[in-house]
Amino acid sequence: MAPDRTRQDKPPATSPLGIVEPQSFSFGAPGSGLVLDSGKEFGPVTVRYETYGTLDAERSNAILLLHAFSGDAHAAGLHSSTDTHPGWWEPMVGPGRAFDTNKYFVICSNTLGGCHGTTGPSSIDPNTGKPYGMSFPVVTIHDMVKVQVKLLDHLGIDRLLAVAGGSMGGMQALEWATTYSHRVRSAVVLASSARMSAQGIAFNAVGRNAITGDPRWNNGDYYEGEPPARGLAIARMVGHITYLSDESMGMKFGRRLQERDSFEFDMEDQFAVESYLEYKGGTFVDRFDANSYIYISRAIDYFDLADKYGSLDAAFAETTTKFLIVSFTSDWLYPPYHSKEIVYSLMKNGKDVSYTEISSPYGHDAFLLESHRQEGIVDAFLETAFQQAREGQNGARR
Amino acid sequence: MAPDRTRQDKPPATSPLGIVEPQSFSFGAPGSGLVLDSGKEFGPVTVRYETYGTLDAERSNAILLLHAFSGDAHAAGLHSSTDTHPGWWEPMVGPGRAFDTNKYFVICSNTLGGCHGTTGPSSIDPNTGKPYGMSFPVVTIHDMVKVQVKLLDHLGIDRLLAVAGGSMGGMQALEWATTYSHRVRSAVVLASSARMSAQGIAFNAVGRNAITGDPRWNNGDYYEGEPPARGLAIARMVGHITYLSDESMGMKFGRRLQERDSFEFDMEDQFAVESYLEYKGGTFVDRFDANSYIYISRAIDYFDLADKYGSLDAAFAETTTKFLIVSFTSDWLYPPYHSKEIVYSLMKNGKDVSYTEISSPYGHDAFLLESHRQEGIVDAFLETAFQQAREGQNGARR
Repeated sequence: MAPDRTRQDKPPATSPLGIVEPQSFSFGAPGSGLVLDSGKEFGPVTVRYETYGTLDAERSNAILLLHAFSGDAHAAGLHSSTDTHPGWWEPMVGPGRAFDTNKYFVICSNTLGGCHGTTGPSSIDPNTGKPYGMSFPVVTIHDMVKVQVKLLDHLGIDRLLAVAGGSMGGMQALEWATTYSHRVRSAVVLASSARMSAQGIAFNAVGRNAITGDPRWNNGDYYEGEPPARGLAIARMVGHITYLSDESMGMKFGRRLQERDSFEFDMEDQFAVESYLEYKGGTFVDRFDANSYIYISRAIDYFDLADKYGSLDAAFAETTTKFLIVSFTSDWLYPPYHSKEIVYSLMKNGKDVSYTEISSPYGHDAFLLESHRQEGIVDAFLETAFQQAREGQNGARR
Repeated sequence: MAPDRTRQDKPPATSPLGIVEPQSFSFGAPGSGLVLDSGKEFGPVTVRYETYGTLDAERSNAILLLHAFSGDAHAAGLHSSTDTHPGWWEPMVGPGRAFDTNKYFVICSNTLGGCHGTTGPSSIDPNTGKPYGMSFPVVTIHDMVKVQVKLLDHLGIDRLLAVAGGSMGGMQALEWATTYSHRVRSAVVLASSARMSAQGIAFNAVGRNAITGDPRWNNGDYYEGEPPARGLAIARMVGHITYLSDESMGMKFGRRLQERDSFEFDMEDQFAVESYLEYKGGTFVDRFDANSYIYISRAIDYFDLADKYGSLDAAFAETTTKFLIVSFTSDWLYPPYHSKEIVYSLMKNGKDVSYTEISSPYGHDAFLLESHRQEGIVDAFLETAFQQAREGQNGARR
């Protein structure tokens, strides 16, 4: 299956948001940049972001969406009239949708360390005129959030109505709601965790090994030649399995052979699930940088709110943010017990938390696929937070 | 961690079986060999096997052990007085153990397609004088069993008291108990399945891709140069995660950092689970052939009793073998529902089946680790089968 051909076959997508323009913002000339968790100062940083809807006069209706591992700033809408796909969270963002652009000013930025416009290992190091590669500094989830804080300062938004994200985006939401609680009224945390499990770290480690074991990786210095496409594809294949579930793979593929006249007893791909995975791995390398894979997966592994604050209870002790936590029954990468740990700690601390576990066969990907199951919950949660924000601003608490 | 050094550091192992001698048997000169499921005739075939205990005069006490993916014929005992490890199923095999060598004649052979003495892709093709590599024919679980049948013929054993195996070994046991039911009184099937799930196939496909994507694989023709060690190590890392469980990895490693003074914020391995996996992947390449990995994983993927016989019910309709089926609660590669499908079909067919689900945190590896939990069950099952065999032979059914 040639990806280009598939794309050409698809009709242009539509979106009620129409065409959106990506925007950029830069800060931190060399020597006056961002202080990273590692202690290093880093800059300059360019941030790619998109916005949907309109910021109100009180600047009280801003929501920051936080993308997952391989996501980007393009959460909704189209980039051109011939686009075949809208943004990654299209069903949730737009007029009348959960992140209702008639009411809210919705922002999404690409994370630090990524490869879609925000500074990352494939960006040019001004000191050398060449891509950073592995000389890019180690970044953490908190470092990603620090860049988002700079963006909000730039946009003149003191306090967000909400942050919202799934998976790694949920980790950022948790970082916001603890370290920057005074700047965010509410947090929507989907299919996420306060710390990755050993199994999750292990899968990330396999992906990194696949990349660094590809001779084309060349210690991260491949930007002038061929990228480590095989290694990155294998990393993605592993990741993709962990995003699905035994049940959803069984439903989607079962033991179906790919289209052939008969079982041929050779070493070519035989099962539909194999060619699907190879296709997914192959298309990923066209849109993702292998070094970003290494840096971002490391950031996920390092994230540990309990370790940072001494305990999960200590992490949430001072938060004033209200929480919506959602997990999905068949999600085995960020299993429900991870969400329940967060909920339990918030409840012990007497915090404002709503929790729901959605029954779904779609594994970790459910947070992207089960929009119709999430939208009512998210919509109601945001509406309550929005009412409370207005009342708070008017000084009229009832 | 250098594997050789670790081995030198370890004291010699002990075993009540003492030192066992691997044996070999060959059959099928070219043109008069084995007819494979693919329709191809193949030979000659050499079979490596070991035996423990003594065959009784009635030849009624023979048990065939069937190893899993990366196992071999060396199920128990030692190969030399300086061996640091006994065979892979040592706790289950020996005098007074579940496979009691005081009572039973226990056989274990290396599977067709493997790399430990039985003919496989690394063996020399007599037609070319070079290793087969990818010219080795596609083999199935049934083909592996056909070779075991030849071995039993060679040993003069018409009917086995039992076949027993876990994982891929359990698949072979199921093949024996359906296609060769008249030659096996009982079957012990641990942590296995009548057909691999789409998720299981997907993990195997990632492993194969990691190997074939390694430039050193060279279409399977690497025996005169460097083997695709990186690819094979990554395949093993993926496999290893699927053999453990979220819980057992959490217990064993948690988020513990490997031994270092502090969190160093660099791109070296940080978590204990990572260095463990890399160590496991690295040592595997010293003892396993990458092409065997491809062939054997394919055989596992192809195995589908329901497809072969039209349905699982049809597969078991004619069997006279009695079954012991065991699954483990945290085994997500061969989850309990796979075993229950087999049990349900056997019960519908009115067959003699015992089933137990053992509560264990050790995932798929539980069938190798939970010997103390299995031994009583297996021992009692075999004793009953043995009594029935004796009574049957004496013609004195009570």
